[in-house]
Amino acid sequence: ESAPRSPSRRCHRRSTAMLDVPFLPFCAFLGTLGLLCVAMVGTWCQHWRGGFSLDGSSRTFNWHPVLMVAGLVVLYGAAALVYRIPSTWSGPKLPWKVLHGSLALGAFVLTVLGLAAVFRFHNSQGTPNMYSLHSWMGLATVLLFSCQWAAGFGAFLLPWAPAWLRALYKPIHVFFGSTILMLSVASCVSGINEKLFFSLKNKTMEYKLLPAEAVFANTLGLLILIFGVLVVAALARPSWKRPDSDSPDSRQVRDALGG
Amino acid sequence: ESAPRSPSRRCHRRSTAMLDVPFLPFCAFLGTLGLLCVAMVGTWCQHWRGGFSLDGSSRTFNWHPVLMVAGLVVLYGAAALVYRIPSTWSGPKLPWKVLHGSLALGAFVLTVLGLAAVFRFHNSQGTPNMYSLHSWMGLATVLLFSCQWAAGFGAFLLPWAPAWLRALYKPIHVFFGSTILMLSVASCVSGINEKLFFSLKNKTMEYKLLPAEAVFANTLGLLILIFGVLVVAALARPSWKRPDSDSPDSRQVRDALGG
Repeated sequence: ESAPRSPSRRCHRRSTAMLDVPFLPFCAFLGTLGLLCVAMVGTWCQHWRGGFSLDGSSRTFNWHPVLMVAGLVVLYGAAALVYRIPSTWSGPKLPWKVLHGSLALGAFVLTVLGLAAVFRFHNSQGTPNMYSLHSWMGLATVLLFSCQWAAGFGAFLLPWAPAWLRALYKPIHVFFGSTILMLSVASCVSGINEKLFFSLKNKTMEYKLLPAEAVFANTLGLLILIFGVLVVAALARPSWKRPDSDSPDSRQVRDALGG
Repeated sequence: ESAPRSPSRRCHRRSTAMLDVPFLPFCAFLGTLGLLCVAMVGTWCQHWRGGFSLDGSSRTFNWHPVLMVAGLVVLYGAAALVYRIPSTWSGPKLPWKVLHGSLALGAFVLTVLGLAAVFRFHNSQGTPNMYSLHSWMGLATVLLFSCQWAAGFGAFLLPWAPAWLRALYKPIHVFFGSTILMLSVASCVSGINEKLFFSLKNKTMEYKLLPAEAVFANTLGLLILIFGVLVVAALARPSWKRPDSDSPDSRQVRDALGG
């Protein structure tokens, strides 16, 4: 604090440079972590929860966690990160918009199938739908995601959307992009927690005795949390954002230059 | 997209101005929302869960949700927002640092008391500690928070901490500031969900029949989520950050000016 300004600035630049992580290796790591989460949720359902079917039993329910983690966390995270790839920053934007929208649409389709799995399971068992906090939060997340996709399509992909609408909506779209991912991660964690309390009940396999399944699924929950935090952090990192757009940064530079 | 650059820019500025929210009224709203969350978690425990005591029963447990929401969410959120108050941007920094550190310390003390409540309850009931995903995530959050406080104290409050260390650690401290809040909100939501499954078990009051308590506590969970999202959004908002610091924005301006 009491150091003269310019050495402190030079030293600030040097030390933040030490924290620089290259984007593409970070993405490769994130991709591996995401695939690991999907593989682990699949393994949990296959190995401990009886596998998969469409017969309305708990084996139908098992599609729910797998599709939600694959769609609303991992594929959604991939869609969100498209504009952080440096090659999207120059040249025509449309192909990247189509990629971003398609990955998000894929995530949305998996999410809707994941909801269908749990509703079909509840209905065939006579269990009420939509009573737990997990279900309220999860459905709110999916509804926000569907609004986000529809509004993004209307504002950014329809060629006749006016520039003022795009400019007005873009920061809102970016904000809800990260928010929806945080909400879906929180939904996953509460869902895994709830499922373990439901499933691990008999005296030798109680959740509180921490059998192998509980350790495995708790670890899965922590990995999903780490994945979500890293994606949100990557989205927020200033040096990974497109520098040429009408961002506050470049406006500030223009203002400083009297532009 | 195809509009000429300068009208689009002018229109961008006009439309982002429409989204401008003044910081202090937003803070007043956040404060009200935070107090409402604390009041609701207290009401839940008092009215439906038997109130509070220190005897090791479930009335001891009831301190856990109240102290966690008050400490690790609401007071933590207040501590995090200190540097967004415009009057902290000029004049001596030390009083604001002390305020930030003291609010965070208060949040930490409430958090530790909240942990003590649940450990005391478990131990007096013979229930194992630390088996659920909620407990793993919650303890990880509290451990991160304690590291964050200690490192923040060491780097920013001890007068002999070197400038290069402060510059290196500051973006890490800022990143974990938001991350810990997201984790604590996710912990709260999974905890409320779990507690409702534990508590609402008898045939007339089952969780799945959505009695008044379930609607009340589910609503509390959603309000905590909204509080957390709004605090993280306020922290991330570029126009609410201190403009004079060594942030990437001001470095970019200096670079543009050849500084």
